[in-house]
Amino acid sequence: MENRRIVLASASPRRKELMNQIGLEPDIVISHIKERVTSSVPSQVVMELASQKAEDVAKNQEPGTFVIGADTVVAADGIILGKPSDHQEARRMLGMLEGKKHQVYTGVCIIRCGEPGRAGEKAIFFDEADVEVAHMSEAEMEEYAGMEEPMDKAGAYGIQGFFARYIKGITGSYANVMGLPVHLVYQELKKLGFWEMENRTGKESQ
Amino acid sequence: MENRRIVLASASPRRKELMNQIGLEPDIVISHIKERVTSSVPSQVVMELASQKAEDVAKNQEPGTFVIGADTVVAADGIILGKPSDHQEARRMLGMLEGKKHQVYTGVCIIRCGEPGRAGEKAIFFDEADVEVAHMSEAEMEEYAGMEEPMDKAGAYGIQGFFARYIKGITGSYANVMGLPVHLVYQELKKLGFWEMENRTGKESQ
Repeated sequence: MENRRIVLASASPRRKELMNQIGLEPDIVISHIKERVTSSVPSQVVMELASQKAEDVAKNQEPGTFVIGADTVVAADGIILGKPSDHQEARRMLGMLEGKKHQVYTGVCIIRCGEPGRAGEKAIFFDEADVEVAHMSEAEMEEYAGMEEPMDKAGAYGIQGFFARYIKGITGSYANVMGLPVHLVYQELKKLGFWEMENRTGKESQ
Repeated sequence: MENRRIVLASASPRRKELMNQIGLEPDIVISHIKERVTSSVPSQVVMELASQKAEDVAKNQEPGTFVIGADTVVAADGIILGKPSDHQEARRMLGMLEGKKHQVYTGVCIIRCGEPGRAGEKAIFFDEADVEVAHMSEAEMEEYAGMEEPMDKAGAYGIQGFFARYIKGITGSYANVMGLPVHLVYQELKKLGFWEMENRTGKESQ
């Protein structure tokens, strides 16, 4: 069933793991474009960035290939948090998150590269979830900010790691909070015909 | 910090993984008691069973050891779903879950075995989460029920596996749905003094 080529335009091991979970085996091709953001609305920002990554990678792919780009940010009291640049910034971000709810946005862009007899297609969407973090003491924030876990993650925490001890609950998709709402990716891939027929990419291209 | 002995009275690899995530390294000791349920209320059922497992294992432990028992059930329209006995039952359970919300209950019992100068203590609690499953076609349910993934799991699905493609979202703790609400376990272990001092179990017992 899953014999079409699919490319994940992201270096995140968590996104790859999520795709593996639902039975997809993506190749990884990382985009090195300079990101351009024209909005300050979290849902728009993540869709813009997901789209730029996917477009950049898609232009070098064979017809019929599916390319997935994604971007995740955390929004606390309207302020967008990306990845912390150092442990001190991680500590500051944790101070903005502890003891309350914040939002996590992941934007996704899926491109089906044009192939013979079928134009290229693109789907862009986002998912949003609320995450509630328990009260954390100074010592707990210091300890966690000093670890490696928060350093490559938007908002300076990983929901699936050590930080799970501080997650009171979420409303929405856990996969979204991890970095890729795979339930939506699955539905969109169905719509785009990923599973519609046996491997078409073997056809002669023109 | 985590140098006290902690025992997980459960064979679930997911519960062990969740404890590892938050920095705990439990020994596994499985209870073989005959489970007795006196209630049909899901929250009561899971607390009863968690308690029976923990009590059974605790009676053979050294003073000062912490023992954790847990039990998880799925409730769909008020009907409690345990683990399916075969693929056909898994298929029936999926039919009760697809296209709507259901509830997941995990009961937890933590016992601190009595030690010199300090009586044994016990904490019993449960957590509840709502899970929304996407509409699934007959073919999708047949495919999933035929896999191994659903066979050892309450409600015949694993939220952290292939089934993630059908999870629209949750309200509550993802760890609870996986089988152990580690944020509550962490808080209760703090209250019970798990992290309060260096290893006391080295003291002479009497």
